[in-house]
Amino acid sequence: MIELRSDTFTLPSPDMLQAMGRARLGDDVYGEDPTVNELEEKAAGMLGKEAACLMPSGTMANLASIMTHAPRGSKILVGTESDIYIYEAGGASVCGGVMYEPIANQADGSLALDDLRAGFPDDLEDPQFALPSLVCLENTQNRCGGVVLSMDYQREVRAFADERGIAVHMDGARIFNAAAALGRPAAELVRYADSVQFCLSKGLSAPIGSMVAGSTEFIRGVRRVRKMLGGGMRQAGFIAAAGIVALDHVDRLAEDHDNALRLAKGLAGLDGVETDPAAVQTNIVMFRVTAPGFSWQTFADAAGRRGLAIAELGHGRLRAVTHSGVTAADIDAAVAIVGRVLSEGAEA
Amino acid sequence: MIELRSDTFTLPSPDMLQAMGRARLGDDVYGEDPTVNELEEKAAGMLGKEAACLMPSGTMANLASIMTHAPRGSKILVGTESDIYIYEAGGASVCGGVMYEPIANQADGSLALDDLRAGFPDDLEDPQFALPSLVCLENTQNRCGGVVLSMDYQREVRAFADERGIAVHMDGARIFNAAAALGRPAAELVRYADSVQFCLSKGLSAPIGSMVAGSTEFIRGVRRVRKMLGGGMRQAGFIAAAGIVALDHVDRLAEDHDNALRLAKGLAGLDGVETDPAAVQTNIVMFRVTAPGFSWQTFADAAGRRGLAIAELGHGRLRAVTHSGVTAADIDAAVAIVGRVLSEGAEA
Amino acid sequence: MIELRSDTFTLPSPDMLQAMGRARLGDDVYGEDPTVNELEEKAAGMLGKEAACLMPSGTMANLASIMTHAPRGSKILVGTESDIYIYEAGGASVCGGVMYEPIANQADGSLALDDLRAGFPDDLEDPQFALPSLVCLENTQNRCGGVVLSMDYQREVRAFADERGIAVHMDGARIFNAAAALGRPAAELVRYADSVQFCLSKGLSAPIGSMVAGSTEFIRGVRRVRKMLGGGMRQAGFIAAAGIVALDHVDRLAEDHDNALRLAKGLAGLDGVETDPAAVQTNIVMFRVTAPGFSWQTFADAAGRRGLAIAELGHGRLRAVTHSGVTAADIDAAVAIVGRVLSEGAEA
Amino acid sequence: MIELRSDTFTLPSPDMLQAMGRARLGDDVYGEDPTVNELEEKAAGMLGKEAACLMPSGTMANLASIMTHAPRGSKILVGTESDIYIYEAGGASVCGGVMYEPIANQADGSLALDDLRAGFPDDLEDPQFALPSLVCLENTQNRCGGVVLSMDYQREVRAFADERGIAVHMDGARIFNAAAALGRPAAELVRYADSVQFCLSKGLSAPIGSMVAGSTEFIRGVRRVRKMLGGGMRQAGFIAAAGIVALDHVDRLAEDHDNALRLAKGLAGLDGVETDPAAVQTNIVMFRVTAPGFSWQTFADAAGRRGLAIAELGHGRLRAVTHSGVTAADIDAAVAIVGRVLSEGAEA
Repeated sequence: MIELRSDTFTLPSPDMLQAMGRARLGDDVYGEDPTVNELEEKAAGMLGKEAACLMPSGTMANLASIMTHAPRGSKILVGTESDIYIYEAGGASVCGGVMYEPIANQADGSLALDDLRAGFPDDLEDPQFALPSLVCLENTQNRCGGVVLSMDYQREVRAFADERGIAVHMDGARIFNAAAALGRPAAELVRYADSVQFCLSKGLSAPIGSMVAGSTEFIRGVRRVRKMLGGGMRQAGFIAAAGIVALDHVDRLAEDHDNALRLAKGLAGLDGVETDPAAVQTNIVMFRVTAPGFSWQTFADAAGRRGLAIAELGHGRLRAVTHSGVTAADIDAAVAIVGRVLSEGAEA
Repeated sequence: MIELRSDTFTLPSPDMLQAMGRARLGDDVYGEDPTVNELEEKAAGMLGKEAACLMPSGTMANLASIMTHAPRGSKILVGTESDIYIYEAGGASVCGGVMYEPIANQADGSLALDDLRAGFPDDLEDPQFALPSLVCLENTQNRCGGVVLSMDYQREVRAFADERGIAVHMDGARIFNAAAALGRPAAELVRYADSVQFCLSKGLSAPIGSMVAGSTEFIRGVRRVRKMLGGGMRQAGFIAAAGIVALDHVDRLAEDHDNALRLAKGLAGLDGVETDPAAVQTNIVMFRVTAPGFSWQTFADAAGRRGLAIAELGHGRLRAVTHSGVTAADIDAAVAIVGRVLSEGAEA
Repeated sequence: MIELRSDTFTLPSPDMLQAMGRARLGDDVYGEDPTVNELEEKAAGMLGKEAACLMPSGTMANLASIMTHAPRGSKILVGTESDIYIYEAGGASVCGGVMYEPIANQADGSLALDDLRAGFPDDLEDPQFALPSLVCLENTQNRCGGVVLSMDYQREVRAFADERGIAVHMDGARIFNAAAALGRPAAELVRYADSVQFCLSKGLSAPIGSMVAGSTEFIRGVRRVRKMLGGGMRQAGFIAAAGIVALDHVDRLAEDHDNALRLAKGLAGLDGVETDPAAVQTNIVMFRVTAPGFSWQTFADAAGRRGLAIAELGHGRLRAVTHSGVTAADIDAAVAIVGRVLSEGAEA
Repeated sequence: MIELRSDTFTLPSPDMLQAMGRARLGDDVYGEDPTVNELEEKAAGMLGKEAACLMPSGTMANLASIMTHAPRGSKILVGTESDIYIYEAGGASVCGGVMYEPIANQADGSLALDDLRAGFPDDLEDPQFALPSLVCLENTQNRCGGVVLSMDYQREVRAFADERGIAVHMDGARIFNAAAALGRPAAELVRYADSVQFCLSKGLSAPIGSMVAGSTEFIRGVRRVRKMLGGGMRQAGFIAAAGIVALDHVDRLAEDHDNALRLAKGLAGLDGVETDPAAVQTNIVMFRVTAPGFSWQTFADAAGRRGLAIAELGHGRLRAVTHSGVTAADIDAAVAIVGRVLSEGAEA
C-alpha cells in the first residue's frame, strides 16, 4: 500500500529505533528525564526561543498554548481552514472557556489583516463583546495545500498584534517543511510568533510527540496546563530520543517536496484530474477528480483497492501527502494507479 | 431627544406602573411569587409551549437555553450576524464549554440548509470533530434588518434537525414583532422550535426581563442553569407584573412597524442616504449615509446634536429602531433632522 | 403565617413602592439609568470602595466576583459551611473553570489561618497542584448562626492574603446585619476585603438585587462578567430605587436582632428545644428539636400547620430568621406555636 | 541512589525494550496501530470490562473518565486524600465544569457511606445544589498508605450508586498491587466499578501510559475526550508494546510488597522513627521521623545525601515506595541509611 493519506503514518528510522533503545531515562513529571531535557533544549535552540516543552500530540501543544495565552472569556482569531478550528474538537472552548472566531483563510494561507482588525469591536469597553487575545497562524497551512506563509505577511501580523496587545501563536505542525521550502532556518520563520508548536511525528518521522516553544515564562505556563490535561508522561525519554534524531535530519524533507511536485505533475498529465503543480510548495498535493461518475469517495475507494491510500480533506478535494515512507518510485506507481482507476471508470 | 438607537430604551406604560405597584409578591427563588407564576403560564400559553421561565435578560435566556440543550464539547450552529454570536460575550464557550460555529446569514435572515449540513463531519465517530447539538435561529433577525423568517424555511430546518438529532432554539427577542408582521399568533411562528426566548423589555416595553419557553423538562433544566448563573430573583413579581401587561398589548407593535416604514420612505427621499423601504418588515430600518464626507460616526454625532439618537449596527450601517416611545410625528421630525444634517454637510 | 424561613421573604416598604413608581429610568445596559448610577455610587460610598455594580442576585454577585478575581485553573478557599460552596450550584467551576477547596468553618464563622495556609503546596512550581487565588469569607456567616467575623480575624486574613498574593472576597449578603451588631459602619467591616457583595433583598427588604463593590478596575471586570452571565438589565432603575431607600434605612436591622434574641430566649425556655440565646448575634436563631418522636421535618410541618414557617439549614438544625415582616408580637406568637406543637407531641 | 520516592521511577525491563524495538506500528489516531489495539483488548480482558483505551498518563485517564461520566454542572464525590482531588490540578473543574466535593477518607481508604449520602440534598429539584453524578474510589489508596479497599465496602458503594443513579469510577493507578495483595484477579476487584484506570508506568514498570476500561459506550466517550485533550498519539505501539509485557508480569508486584514490609519492619526497629508494619498492605510505607530536631525536610535531605531518596506525602509524613528497581538488599541498605542519619542527629 502506498500511503499518501497523511505524513502522520511515518515510521521511525533505524537510527531512531537505536536511539530509543539506548535512551537515558528518568521521570519527566519530576523533570528528571535527561533525554527529554536535551530534546527540549535542542528544540528551543532550533526555533530561536528561550524554552520548549514536549507534548504527547500537536493537539495538546496547540491547546496548552492557547490556554496559556488566552484568558477565559477572550476569543481567538483562527482560520476557517485551520486545523485548530476544524480538527481539534473545540478544546479551547471546552477546557479554556475561550471563543473561536473563525476568519477566512486566503488562498495563500493567510488571514487578511482587515479581517483580523474586524475581530475587535469599536468600543473595547462594551461588555457585549468578547475581546481577542490571540491570533493563530498555521505554517505550512494544511488545508490550503501545504502553503508557506510569507515573512512579509508575518511581519504585518506581528505589528498588528503588538498594536492591539495580543499574542501570536504559530501552529507550525509542519514548520520544518516551510523552512525547507524557503531554505531558511526554522528560527527565522517563527521569529514573529510568541509561541510555536511543531510535530515530531509528521514529516520528521518520530513516532510520537510535538514540541511547544516560547519564552521561559510562557513555557512555565504551558507545563502547568500540560499536567492538568494529562500530558505529563513518565519515562518520556524514549519519545524524546527519537525526536532528537528527527531534529538532526530535518533536511530530508526536501525530498518529500520533490516527490510532491513529481506527484502533482504526474496527476496534472491525466485526464479527469484537476490539480495545479505550481501550487505545490511543500509535501501536500490537493486535487479533484473531475472524471464523470466519480465522487471523491468512490475514487478513493477504487484507488485503495489498487494499493493507493488517499483521503478527502475538505470541500470534496483529495489530499496526497508525501513523507519518508514514500519514494519517487512509489509516486510513479501512485500516478499509474490513478490513471488506471480513471481509465477503468466509475463503473468498475 | 428622539431615541432610535434601540427599542431597549422603551419606558413602561402607565398601566405597567400601576400593575407593578399592585403586584402580589413572594420569593420567586422558592417558586412562591404568584405574579411570576402567572406570567410564566401566560407566556407559555401564548407561545404554545408547555412551560416558561422568567429571566433577567435575553442574554441569560439564550445562554441558559444553549446550556440546557448543548452538552459540553458540542458545537452550536449560529448565524455570523446573530446576536448570540456577536453580542453575548462568548458565554456559551465560557460557561458551557460549547463551541460556536458561525454560519453565514442570508439576506433573509436564514442559515442555508447546505451550510447547516456542512456543520456535520462525514464521519460522526471521528473524535477530531466537535459535533453539532443545536441550531440557533433569530426571528426577527436584527442585523439583517429586522426580517422575519419564513415558515417554510423553519419547517425545513425542523426536518433537518430531526434528521440529525439536534435541537432548534429560537432567539425570538422580537418574536412578537415577527408575529405582528405576519399577522399570525406567536405560537404559530415558534412551532418548529424546541425552545424560544423573547424579551419583555424591547418593543413590548416592560422595564426588565425575558422569557424562555419550551417543554416542561427543558424548562426544568433552564431553571437549574438560571440559578447557577445568578438569575434567580426574589420578589420578581414586580417585573412580572409589567410583563403581563406587556403581553396583553402585543398588538401595538404594528404601530411601530408603520413608523419604521414611514421612516424608511422619508429617508429614501433624501439625497445622501441609501435605504430600501421594501426591505422594512418590522420595526428596524437600516441605512447608509452616502453623502460625501460623512462617516457613520460623524453623521450619528451630528444627528445626536440635533436631537436624534441613532447608532451603527455592523458593517458601517446605521440602524433606526421604532418603538412605543416614538410617534409618527417623531418620525417626521427625525427625517427632517437627517435632511438638515445632510444639507449642512460633513463640515458643519 | 409567621414567616421565619428566611429574610429573603421581605416585602418592600411603602417608601420603596413610592420610590419605584417615581424612579427616573434609562437603559442600564448602556449605562444610562440614572437611578442605577445613583445607587451604585451610594453603595460604593457606604462600603468605602471606589465603585459598585448592581446585580440581579447575590449568587451572581459572588460568581462575577470570583470570576474577576480567580483565573481559570486556580482554586478558591471557601468555608465548608459557606453559602458560596453549598448553595450556588458550583457556578465557579462551571463558568469559571475554578476549583473549590472547602475549609472547615470554625464555630465563630472563621476559616482557621492554618487551614488557609495548608491550601498552598510547599512547591508552588509543582504543576500537580491548583494554586489558590482567592479566599472567600462570609459575614455574617449564615450556617454558623448569623455570627459576625471579628475585625482582628479579618486583619489576619488580610495579612495572610497579602503575603501569598491572593485576593479576599467578602460574601457580605448580610453585612449590614454585621454592621448593626457591631455598631460600626459597614465600610469599616469590609476594609480588609478586596471586594464585597451584599444583598438589597434580604434584611434590607428591597425586592430584588445585590451589589458588588471594590476597586474601579475590579468593578470594570465584574461588569464584563455580568453581561456575559446575563445580568445586564434594561430599566433597572426600578430595582435601584428600592435599593436606595433600603440603604437609607439600614439602622432598622437592630430591631430584627432584638427579635431574634427574644425568639431564642423564648425557645430556650421550652422543654424539647435546644438553643443558645448567647450565640445569637444578629437576625438568625439556630435550634434543634430534642423532644422525643420529632424529626426536624415533622416538627416543621406541624409548626407550618399552626402558622409558623421555619426550615432546616444543615445538619438537622432548624433556622429562624427575623426581618422587617416580623414583629415582637409575631415572635411571641411563634414561641407559643412551638410550645403548642411540642406539648401536642409528635403523634399529633 | 536507592530510589524510594515513587514507583513512577521504574525503568523498563529488557523484555520491554526488546518488545518496543520489534513492535508493529500504525497511526493510532486513525485506530490503525495493531500493538495498541492488542494492548487495549488485553487490558479490557484482564479487568473484565468490554473495552479499554490507552492514555498518555493516569491524570488524563482519570480526567477523561470523569468528563465522560459527569455532565457539566454536576459534582463528583472524591476523597480528601485522593490523588484525583489533590494532584490533578483541578482538571475536572477546568475542563469539565464539574465541582469536586471532597469527602474525608477513612483510615482504610474508604469514603463513609453516610458521608456519600450527605452529598445529596434533601430536595433534588432545588437548583441551589449541584447534584452528584459520580463517586471516585482509589484502590490502592495512596495517601492512606497503599491500603486495599475491601470488596464488602465496594459492594455497598455500588448499591448506593445504583440507588442514587450515579456512576462509580475507580482510580486504580495501583490496582494490580491491590490484586496481588488480595491474591485475586484484578477483574474481581473492579467488578463494582463502572470504569477503572490503571497505570502501566508505576509498579508495572512500563515507561509511559495508563489504561481506562469500561463499557464499549463509555470508552467511545473517553476516546472523544482523549482526542480533545490531546491524548491521541501517533505510533503509540511503542508504548503499548511495553504495556503488554507489563501485563504479562503483574505477579512480580508481590515482591515489592515483601520489600515494603521488610522496610517497615526495619524502620520500626529504629528509635526516632514511627511506623506501623501491620499497616503495610502493598508497596507503600508511611512513616514519621520523631527524633528531636528533624523536620521531614531536613531528614529527607540528609537521607538524600547518603544515597536514599524519599519524599513527603501529606501531613508531614514520609512515604517510601518499593518497586522493580529496588531489591531486598537495597531495602536493608535503606534501613541502614535511616539509622545512620538518625544516629548522626539533626545537627550533622
